[in-house]
Amino acid sequence: MRNCIIASTSTIHGSQPLAYLKDALIELYSDVDEILFIPYARPGGISHDEYTIGINNIFKKINKKIVSIHMFKSTQDAFNNVQGIYTGGGNTFLLVDQLYRNNVITPLKEAILSGAPYLGTSAGSNICGLTMQTTNDMPITYPPNFKTLGIFPFNINAHYLDPDPNSTHKGETRETRIKEFHNLNSQPVVGLREGSWLRIRDEEITLEGDLSARIFEQNKAPYELDSGNSLSTLN
Amino acid sequence: MRNCIIASTSTIHGSQPLAYLKDALIELYSDVDEILFIPYARPGGISHDEYTIGINNIFKKINKKIVSIHMFKSTQDAFNNVQGIYTGGGNTFLLVDQLYRNNVITPLKEAILSGAPYLGTSAGSNICGLTMQTTNDMPITYPPNFKTLGIFPFNINAHYLDPDPNSTHKGETRETRIKEFHNLNSQPVVGLREGSWLRIRDEEITLEGDLSARIFEQNKAPYELDSGNSLSTLN
Repeated sequence: MRNCIIASTSTIHGSQPLAYLKDALIELYSDVDEILFIPYARPGGISHDEYTIGINNIFKKINKKIVSIHMFKSTQDAFNNVQGIYTGGGNTFLLVDQLYRNNVITPLKEAILSGAPYLGTSAGSNICGLTMQTTNDMPITYPPNFKTLGIFPFNINAHYLDPDPNSTHKGETRETRIKEFHNLNSQPVVGLREGSWLRIRDEEITLEGDLSARIFEQNKAPYELDSGNSLSTLN
Repeated sequence: MRNCIIASTSTIHGSQPLAYLKDALIELYSDVDEILFIPYARPGGISHDEYTIGINNIFKKINKKIVSIHMFKSTQDAFNNVQGIYTGGGNTFLLVDQLYRNNVITPLKEAILSGAPYLGTSAGSNICGLTMQTTNDMPITYPPNFKTLGIFPFNINAHYLDPDPNSTHKGETRETRIKEFHNLNSQPVVGLREGSWLRIRDEEITLEGDLSARIFEQNKAPYELDSGNSLSTLN
């Protein structure tokens, strides 16, 4: 049982955080009063408390209460009777490091696979793939492992960006980086553009939002998948 | 004793690889006939042999012979009587992983600190900082450690890119990423734009090339350093 929204970004240009997902979140969390928030990805600037208050201000508009994992005495307490879950964005290295160090990997995976409604945005989406190895983030900390939750049998590249045909920059494009990944790794990568998300319901995975996604499979030319189509057989 | 060129990129737009550095390389390698090449960063597409042949074709124009580390029976053999060294670009995670696995970290550091003329481009420059944690590359492999050679007491951000004021993209800018790095780490970061390099001669470190560099120090506003100026006291 899976019931997830895996979003490229929390925020799209010119809009408030999560505003573009409002209807989708009302539906995702329809049976949920309280959402467990995981703020670990945020690399500073604001505290976990401040981050949580900001997220609670967003969710109270759809009549949901936020409780953050850092407010509990233990990880086990946080997952006792968990209803819904939201993992926010920031830095994926920091998020994965904290998930391992606070022993959150296993209970989080079990809760999602048991059907707890889950929202991930950006880093919170990356961790649902097989590994975090297609993140765009800087390695600001050294996590004990790059393996992530494996909620689906591929990887996410959040905030996917098309190459700029007019660029004179010689740094690698996103597409080049993912091709390098496939020189050493075999799982597919879904390049999710900002404004796109995956809707996962049990065995079904569908691309949602206005845009197409770019799919990268090893030893295959990358291709576009239009919104509304299935990724259920991608592996 | 240090004698290094630490370049942002091997190639600038509209130019052949290393062409913009030709005069600087003639000077760097003036007492050297043979250069030990380290091709480990290249994540595939071409073999180490092919990469080495391409690099040799460039260096023979300035009358230098390239021998690649992968052509030796052992790392120790490669560093016996080493004259000059060049570490090329590619993926920094892969490069650091291979440096550790092939026991190259210590002999490479010792050779550079003993005064062997060293050229690094891109990933080959990143590894001369304290850590590889300000790379832009994707974590396509998991190195045993993020610590690097520490030839100077700061980090490099190669291919430094200024924020695009017209961007509607919500992924982090390079400046934001380096700020996140400084929430967890204290060493300065030198944002080296393409076409810039550091020239290190013993205790002196000077910025070379046409462009300024952007310097990031923890708890300080980022600032520009003009070409020709010293970074010898940055730490």
